Amino acid sequence: MKSPIDIDLRRIVSRPSLLRSISAAYQGILKGLLFDRLAAVPYAAIPIATAISLQSGMPMIYPRKEAKDYGTRAAIEGDHNPGETVVLIDDLATTGGSKFEVIDKLKAAGLRVQDVVVLIDRQSGAREMLQQAGFGFHAVVTISELLDHWERTGRVDSDRIEAARRFISASRTA
Amino acid sequence: MKSPIDIDLRRIVSRPSLLRSISAAYQGILKGLLFDRLAAVPYAAIPIATAISLQSGMPMIYPRKEAKDYGTRAAIEGDHNPGETVVLIDDLATTGGSKFEVIDKLKAAGLRVQDVVVLIDRQSGAREMLQQAGFGFHAVVTISELLDHWERTGRVDSDRIEAARRFISASRTA
Repeated sequence: MKSPIDIDLRRIVSRPSLLRSISAAYQGILKGLLFDRLAAVPYAAIPIATAISLQSGMPMIYPRKEAKDYGTRAAIEGDHNPGETVVLIDDLATTGGSKFEVIDKLKAAGLRVQDVVVLIDRQSGAREMLQQAGFGFHAVVTISELLDHWERTGRVDSDRIEAARRFISASRTA
Repeated sequence: MKSPIDIDLRRIVSRPSLLRSISAAYQGILKGLLFDRLAAVPYAAIPIATAISLQSGMPMIYPRKEAKDYGTRAAIEGDHNPGETVVLIDDLATTGGSKFEVIDKLKAAGLRVQDVVVLIDRQSGAREMLQQAGFGFHAVVTISELLDHWERTGRVDSDRIEAARRFISASRTA
């Protein structure tokens, strides 16, 4: 089942003022959480976590996406110490599956992950899967909220809005 | 010939206030250059270019490091148009070899690269190689300047300073 909704948040770097606003929106959520470092999921979340780090003063780390290709190159970049708690920062959440890969990398370095924060929750199971596994899950907006917004503003055709709603509903009850 | 100097600038993300200062130092150089977008070399330069972008308002792009793993995923993230000029942002320059790989990716997307800007020039041939190929090359500091600084401040043993100077001298005349 292919989603009718394609969201490319890697384009955010094309609009630094938008990136600044997005960073502020994450901070609204982060203020309520306890953690030592931001952990960005590459690539999309590295610019986002950098913006949050610059605004908040919180240090960040990021696990590298590719396999280690040479020598002593660390799998996780940036200073970190075993026992520290990191909050996982990503752009999107869909089923949640890819988050566990990153969480495993962080755990392998002795880090604790309690919460996952994303900009957009695509409402295709991530919240349920992460919460069942004991993680807090937080999103700035859900895709349903965005669809309501786009419907009100007429930015997206109503046929496409409805197709997207049907898809979300189907993937939530799957 | 293995360098006695190991510089890990990926740790910069651990100190957001340092990242802000570093970004300002790049901007001192960027003010004198003409370009449409910042192009960051992953991974180390993505947080750096993000900080520059947030400070300056200049949009950024980044070519992905790994081979395209699925479908329509672009090799270069962020909006860009053929004919635009991008300035290559990296953390370090050593021989310059790795810069050409990234420049080729950018050229394949129709982008023009005129200048390369780094934080530290390790003085092992990058400047000469890039300038011979017609690119402008700019560094916030050279490794020789850093060695002089560390010698004055006594932060590094004089034996290690001398070993590093011998290495640089040998690699420049190689």
